[in-house]
Amino acid sequence: MPLTPEQEAEIAALRASPRATLRAVSEGMEQHLHHPIEVLDHGLVRVVDYMGDDAAIVQAARVSYGAGTKHVSNDAGLIRYLMRHWHSTPFEMCEIKLHVKLPVFVARQWIRHRTANVNEYSARYSILDREFYIPAPDALAAQSTTNNQGRGALLEGAEAARVLEILKADSTRAYDSYEAMLSQDGQQGLARELARMNLPMNIYTQWYWKTDLHNLFHFLRLRADPHAQYEIRVYADAIAQVVRDWVPLAWEAFEDYRLGAVQISARGVDCLRRMLAGEEVTQETSGMAKGEWREFIATWGR
Amino acid sequence: MPLTPEQEAEIAALRASPRATLRAVSEGMEQHLHHPIEVLDHGLVRVVDYMGDDAAIVQAARVSYGAGTKHVSNDAGLIRYLMRHWHSTPFEMCEIKLHVKLPVFVARQWIRHRTANVNEYSARYSILDREFYIPAPDALAAQSTTNNQGRGALLEGAEAARVLEILKADSTRAYDSYEAMLSQDGQQGLARELARMNLPMNIYTQWYWKTDLHNLFHFLRLRADPHAQYEIRVYADAIAQVVRDWVPLAWEAFEDYRLGAVQISARGVDCLRRMLAGEEVTQETSGMAKGEWREFIATWGR
Amino acid sequence: MPLTPEQEAEIAALRASPRATLRAVSEGMEQHLHHPIEVLDHGLVRVVDYMGDDAAIVQAARVSYGAGTKHVSNDAGLIRYLMRHWHSTPFEMCEIKLHVKLPVFVARQWIRHRTANVNEYSARYSILDREFYIPAPDALAAQSTTNNQGRGALLEGAEAARVLEILKADSTRAYDSYEAMLSQDGQQGLARELARMNLPMNIYTQWYWKTDLHNLFHFLRLRADPHAQYEIRVYADAIAQVVRDWVPLAWEAFEDYRLGAVQISARGVDCLRRMLAGEEVTQETSGMAKGEWREFIATWGR
Amino acid sequence: MPLTPEQEAEIAALRASPRATLRAVSEGMEQHLHHPIEVLDHGLVRVVDYMGDDAAIVQAARVSYGAGTKHVSNDAGLIRYLMRHWHSTPFEMCEIKLHVKLPVFVARQWIRHRTANVNEYSARYSILDREFYIPAPDALAAQSTTNNQGRGALLEGAEAARVLEILKADSTRAYDSYEAMLSQDGQQGLARELARMNLPMNIYTQWYWKTDLHNLFHFLRLRADPHAQYEIRVYADAIAQVVRDWVPLAWEAFEDYRLGAVQISARGVDCLRRMLAGEEVTQETSGMAKGEWREFIATWGR
Repeated sequence: MPLTPEQEAEIAALRASPRATLRAVSEGMEQHLHHPIEVLDHGLVRVVDYMGDDAAIVQAARVSYGAGTKHVSNDAGLIRYLMRHWHSTPFEMCEIKLHVKLPVFVARQWIRHRTANVNEYSARYSILDREFYIPAPDALAAQSTTNNQGRGALLEGAEAARVLEILKADSTRAYDSYEAMLSQDGQQGLARELARMNLPMNIYTQWYWKTDLHNLFHFLRLRADPHAQYEIRVYADAIAQVVRDWVPLAWEAFEDYRLGAVQISARGVDCLRRMLAGEEVTQETSGMAKGEWREFIATWGR
Repeated sequence: MPLTPEQEAEIAALRASPRATLRAVSEGMEQHLHHPIEVLDHGLVRVVDYMGDDAAIVQAARVSYGAGTKHVSNDAGLIRYLMRHWHSTPFEMCEIKLHVKLPVFVARQWIRHRTANVNEYSARYSILDREFYIPAPDALAAQSTTNNQGRGALLEGAEAARVLEILKADSTRAYDSYEAMLSQDGQQGLARELARMNLPMNIYTQWYWKTDLHNLFHFLRLRADPHAQYEIRVYADAIAQVVRDWVPLAWEAFEDYRLGAVQISARGVDCLRRMLAGEEVTQETSGMAKGEWREFIATWGR
Repeated sequence: MPLTPEQEAEIAALRASPRATLRAVSEGMEQHLHHPIEVLDHGLVRVVDYMGDDAAIVQAARVSYGAGTKHVSNDAGLIRYLMRHWHSTPFEMCEIKLHVKLPVFVARQWIRHRTANVNEYSARYSILDREFYIPAPDALAAQSTTNNQGRGALLEGAEAARVLEILKADSTRAYDSYEAMLSQDGQQGLARELARMNLPMNIYTQWYWKTDLHNLFHFLRLRADPHAQYEIRVYADAIAQVVRDWVPLAWEAFEDYRLGAVQISARGVDCLRRMLAGEEVTQETSGMAKGEWREFIATWGR
Repeated sequence: MPLTPEQEAEIAALRASPRATLRAVSEGMEQHLHHPIEVLDHGLVRVVDYMGDDAAIVQAARVSYGAGTKHVSNDAGLIRYLMRHWHSTPFEMCEIKLHVKLPVFVARQWIRHRTANVNEYSARYSILDREFYIPAPDALAAQSTTNNQGRGALLEGAEAARVLEILKADSTRAYDSYEAMLSQDGQQGLARELARMNLPMNIYTQWYWKTDLHNLFHFLRLRADPHAQYEIRVYADAIAQVVRDWVPLAWEAFEDYRLGAVQISARGVDCLRRMLAGEEVTQETSGMAKGEWREFIATWGR
């Protein structure tokens, strides 16, 4: 369970006190507020606050375009138009603030998204809890034999057991050492900012993370992608559920024009046109290198 | 009056429909929502949305600091501590969205603040209104004789009248020409994206502008400063009123540690210490150049 | 001619003094350094400085990927791979600094690209020159009848002459007024920060603009696009010439995967697959709205 | 020694091949190029590339200010003026690219500076080396008894020995486990992206890090500060040496107006004025809280 009873009680108090506001309200998002979504074995994603809804995107775009937008029949059409033509600024007008608990090695990937606001729990100031990510058996995969930065088949039998044993034992030992070094019982006690260096990267940290919808979509496109590491993808998937309920029109446009979309290179466009005209195109006649042709064929068959 | 009756009605509708939310609510800010503050002769600042309040700053900082913050006696103390020690990320956890109507030459200064989201009314797409900033007599100043980028005494008598006459006549003529070039009455009509180039920079534009509290404070520190141009300072002053009611604790800390604070150089620190010890320091013995010494004396007297 | 003789002389001096460096040098780029490219009637783009070359992209990516990249046969292949898979950070390792002279209405579009460093000539501090953009006859277009934010056919005959006449006369008058208001001859002289508001947006300004290659590519993708306004596109085209010589491998990848590439939505992918399988797809059976289908057909024919 | 012989050879080759350029050259910086500065036990800072020098700051500012700057007697004076008045954009016109090798817990602090470009060595793709930061005896400090996020006295005798023993043993064990899990000898071998989670945060990583001079100064102000953690401060100190030689005029202004400067709050200004006038100010009469008064007195004595 990722939350202590005190934390549960604090969150329940937040949920119990609706207040009046003149701001835009997304009913779908209100359902998510302060409801932690569990992720991995000890992680969570919790919506702490949000700003805007589908209408706020349209409203901002209409300042941008003035009275001229009257001809766009409805909000869904305008939002699809904006997404299709890469007009990103109206999507920046919605904002979300999340409380996330996640393993450090996931946090290190996540933080590479620079256009966000972050407050992380400080291990210089405080003592981290004894909580480590230990993969479930169906996430314990071997190195991919074809992709240098991916994973392949699941580990089996004794090897899987051995790995889990190692991860658990090393985490336990590292945390025991952390406590032993910090202890002021009969000794001075090592500075927290130093002791933390002994902890492995599967320990959990937590942060407040705030970003706008445009940058969140960018995050989701990269991190909800099948090529993303599983352990960050599950966070992206949890956030995706939230976004779907928060801004359903924008989400639908995002799914169609980004998540499910395909970028075709100039060479690929040429090949597709020839294929549509009935030509049998091969790697040799495509002008593409092998790797690129393999990716092309994976999308377009033949 | 900066708003049309239709716009007034739309805004009134927004104000008339409070809704329930589980988010943080700032009562002071709810009073400002959708109430346009008039600025200059046709401009306005209107709060469209906001996220967070003083408690949200503390809440984010406490994730950052964990249970360790128990010793900070209260929210005000923690907020002052964060401001004093340049811990900027908790202030980034509050966000504001404004609708602003402003002259183009002011917009050109404003947009230099890059950490913000902007949707501007498009003069490629739409036709701008015939609204120009004409300074009030008490804002019609001569070039400063001492500061190359500032203004000095008020213009007087005939010269003031002549300037106002020129500004009005040239605006009128430019807009007449704009309409004449756009007209499709008996002619093709110049493209809007071209015709706009004939308009002078005192014409009004408008935008949605969204930023976080940390970056807003930075904006206010530079633009509510006496050295800022008057025409942007009045916008900063209008926003300052809003921020004071939105996050009163953060505002007070900002006033004390930024707006009213003074940065003293290493040389200045040395001089002040000598002065406190009773020494009579002069420009010659200060180690400062003349301009710097003049600024130093303006603050510390002697 | 956009440069004064003094400016020409200063630039010539820069060109005449090669110096030794241990940094990465791009021979193609050295040819461009300090050679102003003329744009529009008074504008220019001049490379002032740069950092990195194609090899610098590879070098940064190889830190990112360590010894593992040995299997990528050559730099071109790795650069194409990075571009295809949206690995943007290695492209951020190259930087360019340009001196640009451009009309204010173009500058107002350009500045919307926030991830850049800018120093603009200050009209608070200095007096702008009497230089205005007056379109050449082949750039004098009517409002598009189908696209609200675009231009259509060229203006003809008397109308074209009238527009040019207006633009010239209004510019002249506005600048005459500007000088008259600034003059300290027998009067105080209006502050420069105020007088500038009378100038129309076809006046030229100038700035130093510095950005990294990733963000420059993003700029070029949007601004070298046929939908971009002609007056900014010519600047993008001038910069594109420079980039081609600076980082030829990255440029080629950019052309193939971005400039000449097509993004196909999930619905579009479905349609294309059906078309490849021999099905006759129409707007009705496509699931697309009319506008979207029109854009789809424009790319894929039928 | 942080570099392998192969890496030494590659770097030596870079140093041996000066080339001609028309760009700004900083002689002081050329001396640093590709010379790794050793930091901590296995870390390094190496200048890979740079753009600009002191003159480039002035040059950019002079576009910004036009001919008007003639009255500033020299470059040093202008640079000091820009720094004193927070004109940050000219400093953004210089850029630096560093290769840094650093422990992960230091990298996690460092990456919080978002306005930079980063390519980090990927432990998804590659296998990390067996290199861990083990503090030198004079960096092995106890938790501070007064500052929750700092360190106090050095650990002594048996406790110090015990801590070093733990750090070494746990690092060794964690890395042995890492290798055992990765091994494909008689087993499938765990995916690298998973195995890395077992490594403690004192393992070394490396990255290319590129930023502009304004943001670098901001980094140095926070990280070369006595309150910064020692392990990041030594990196800041190494970079500071480099900057001093790269842009000596800007560095001097930075030292005077930032590093050695003091920010005094509005209350503090009031107190100082009263003290200069001879009044005996105490915490009670200062209007400051205890913590703030303590910091005030630490600077101004009494």
